[in-house]
Amino acid sequence: MSVETFTVTGMTCGHCVASVTSEVSKLDGVTKVDVDLASGSVTVESDSPVDPGAFALAVDEAGFAVVK
Amino acid sequence: MSVETFTVTGMTCGHCVASVTSEVSKLDGVTKVDVDLASGSVTVESDSPVDPGAFALAVDEAGFAVVK
Repeated sequence: MSVETFTVTGMTCGHCVASVTSEVSKLDGVTKVDVDLASGSVTVESDSPVDPGAFALAVDEAGFAVVK
Repeated sequence: MSVETFTVTGMTCGHCVASVTSEVSKLDGVTKVDVDLASGSVTVESDSPVDPGAFALAVDEAGFAVVK
């Protein structure tokens, strides 16, 4: 199992958190997504390490951006 | 036709706007809902004047509050 933490900018409310959680949850092998709205911290549990590019695309799909 | 403007607090992003628009659009006779996120201004076009109590309930359903 792999646990990684990314930082996402632009989330302002619970709807934003739900959108990011939904999109990131669709990534291959992802088993759990935990978003902290205040810090923008997104913790992802997955079967194998998440591809950062795929993660960034999922976040973009939700309408937000990853801090590099 | 009736056009009224209310002020709603707590909306922070486009998802919030979409939630309020969706709930208010369900009210009887409502034909158009226009939300300005920055000001919280919600303009409602309807066949007859919107009941303020029904409007407040719809906004509450979306998770926000009307300024009295």
